[in-house]
Amino acid sequence: MRQSQLFTKTRREAPSDEVSKNAQLLVRGGYIHKEMAGVYSYLPLGLRVFKKVEQIVREEMNKIGGQEMVMTALQDKEVWEKTGRWDDAVVDNWFKTKLKNDTELGLAYTHEPAITQLMKGYVSSYRDLPTAAYQFQLKFRNELRAKSGIFRLRQFTMKDLYSFSKNQKELDTFYEAAIEAYRAVFNRVGLGDKTYLTLASGGSFGTKFSHEFQTLTSAGEDTIYIHEGRKLAVNKEVYSDETLSELGLRKEDLREEKAVEVGNIYKLGTFYSEPLGLTFKDEAGANQPVIMGSYGIGIDRLIGTAVEVFADDKGIVWPEALAPFRVHLVDLSAGNEEVQKDAQELYRELTEAGVEVLWDDRDVRAGEKFADSDLLGIPLRVIVSQKSLEAGRYECVERASGTAAHKTLSELLSHLRAD
Amino acid sequence: MRQSQLFTKTRREAPSDEVSKNAQLLVRGGYIHKEMAGVYSYLPLGLRVFKKVEQIVREEMNKIGGQEMVMTALQDKEVWEKTGRWDDAVVDNWFKTKLKNDTELGLAYTHEPAITQLMKGYVSSYRDLPTAAYQFQLKFRNELRAKSGIFRLRQFTMKDLYSFSKNQKELDTFYEAAIEAYRAVFNRVGLGDKTYLTLASGGSFGTKFSHEFQTLTSAGEDTIYIHEGRKLAVNKEVYSDETLSELGLRKEDLREEKAVEVGNIYKLGTFYSEPLGLTFKDEAGANQPVIMGSYGIGIDRLIGTAVEVFADDKGIVWPEALAPFRVHLVDLSAGNEEVQKDAQELYRELTEAGVEVLWDDRDVRAGEKFADSDLLGIPLRVIVSQKSLEAGRYECVERASGTAAHKTLSELLSHLRAD
Repeated sequence: MRQSQLFTKTRREAPSDEVSKNAQLLVRGGYIHKEMAGVYSYLPLGLRVFKKVEQIVREEMNKIGGQEMVMTALQDKEVWEKTGRWDDAVVDNWFKTKLKNDTELGLAYTHEPAITQLMKGYVSSYRDLPTAAYQFQLKFRNELRAKSGIFRLRQFTMKDLYSFSKNQKELDTFYEAAIEAYRAVFNRVGLGDKTYLTLASGGSFGTKFSHEFQTLTSAGEDTIYIHEGRKLAVNKEVYSDETLSELGLRKEDLREEKAVEVGNIYKLGTFYSEPLGLTFKDEAGANQPVIMGSYGIGIDRLIGTAVEVFADDKGIVWPEALAPFRVHLVDLSAGNEEVQKDAQELYRELTEAGVEVLWDDRDVRAGEKFADSDLLGIPLRVIVSQKSLEAGRYECVERASGTAAHKTLSELLSHLRAD
Repeated sequence: MRQSQLFTKTRREAPSDEVSKNAQLLVRGGYIHKEMAGVYSYLPLGLRVFKKVEQIVREEMNKIGGQEMVMTALQDKEVWEKTGRWDDAVVDNWFKTKLKNDTELGLAYTHEPAITQLMKGYVSSYRDLPTAAYQFQLKFRNELRAKSGIFRLRQFTMKDLYSFSKNQKELDTFYEAAIEAYRAVFNRVGLGDKTYLTLASGGSFGTKFSHEFQTLTSAGEDTIYIHEGRKLAVNKEVYSDETLSELGLRKEDLREEKAVEVGNIYKLGTFYSEPLGLTFKDEAGANQPVIMGSYGIGIDRLIGTAVEVFADDKGIVWPEALAPFRVHLVDLSAGNEEVQKDAQELYRELTEAGVEVLWDDRDVRAGEKFADSDLLGIPLRVIVSQKSLEAGRYECVERASGTAAHKTLSELLSHLRAD
């Protein structure tokens, strides 16, 4: 894409109302736009990143047998009442609204009750189980404070998957598969090294612990205790002598860190299926409640985490899998027609080879182009100038390492194809 | 995909609370699930159709230079107040909600004010214009009645594109390009023949008329008067002697029809840019308000329209571009291992050739499989049975025409590749 055509622009200064690094950089780069505290639009560059993350998560959920669907934001009060979670005294971050006839509706902060109700139409026999469904859908949470950029939003997109099993063993098997799928997601987005499977409180769902995936960052709101050797952690909320002894962990082997929760998985058991009546007939013909699990990844927060973890003092540094473009073609032709033609030709060659290129064809100074390129954080910068034309080689600079190399077109193409 | 793995099931009977044909068939086929009146979830089959439509619309919007983004559902009261449209007496289908501190928020029923406000951050000079941005985003409308299935929803997805121009001529040029893009969309989804560019009231936006795209169907809520020769129509709401004489149309050349609005385009002019202060400096350095246009297509309604228009008494008939799968492989092996192996082999061959196949591998009677296949409406049914194995040819039945042909695997593959 030609950068001159993009309707967004970069900003030198972070808006004064943004305190978090992720929002400061994403707003400055023209990735997102703040509508109000905790509510951001995705601009064209940001949406490209969003779709990359979404597709990675989709592929991994499909691999474990998840079937994609989309539920609704507007939710039925009656269904929530059956699970005792409609009352604002029980759930403190509801957004609610009303039909013209004054019937109250909820704006989904989660979809467990809705999918439990929905599945009653399709699950009746042991032959229908196990199964799993997921969606990418808006969640609304009426957060009292929203100051962490896209870490804690009032409106955000979650991938939420729900599993439905006949018995505990089947749930356990799926749960283990989900852990591996989550590991694959975090590895693919480049956060695997910094992400720990973490024991957390099980909430009100009957099981003692749930699991979170926590990624190390000083911007995180959580404190976790890491065992590096076993690549696991314990959330401060369940960190006690009792927990440690249960897990066979010794305090002196653990390290305290700040982290952000990038995923969570719960064994729901029959918490929703019992009150809502989601049952199946087993092989003996007896009615049994379905055993459920719930598996979430916040897409926005994952993007924010990648920004927090990889950014440097010059701007964003995207891991390749998330970058809006693979190559930033910085065109220093400055009116020189021959150089301009070379830039155009390079853009064509790369695009035809299937490489996503942002071509900075704007009529601005070189210094401004380099500063913007640093801010935007596209993995490989390729500079086209009088010099490159004369040498027959382009200067190629990796955003993450700063490493520069001079490559001919065919060297560049084979480098990009090797990825 | 193996049909036995799909968590949804078909239903013989339409739910008693569905009166519209589109919802009856889509619910029976397991395409959608009703959460409440006017609020439907998309199940795996329905989501496949949804994404087909979305991608067609996306491609056509990209061709006219639209840049994809995503705005938010939660909206700022203050921005709406500046355009005089916050008051429930002015806009009668608002859903509203509140922050914890009692600040009122709106749930987007449209995004004109939001994008006008947003663009103030990026448009300042004539050099920034023209530009256009679009999104696929939820809209919320507090409809008093919602009885037309997915024709009139309380929550739905709209593609809304907004154009920003320096002057009327630039707007007119874009507007014409948008008309052609809309024609391309309706042609590609198979509704081109039945869809008419229709003059409608311009609303409060200063221009006399707006344009709608209306598709003929008895399920439509609108009445239009068609001039077949000129392939245009006049909505009843602006049908008058004065309008006809302005357009050079004679009453006797027009035909009255029921139709559904599948798209609408408006010249907004400065209706939003003036109160919200979206201006640009022209070449002489003077501040001018940006000239805007707005272009909508309701994705859900387009799907519902295709169902209404093409369905027959046996079920849905998808046009190829919208079908969740290209081929329905009806497997009549009924326990015969050789036939089963042949079905599996055929599934593999087709899938490897890039054909999307739903393989009905369920353990149910042939009659039930055929009835479900009719209901689901996949364009080509390929039957694998003892007979096909012996003949070395598969019976291939087109859902739309009922035409049957017997094809070898290679004939079938070349038929599918020819599309």
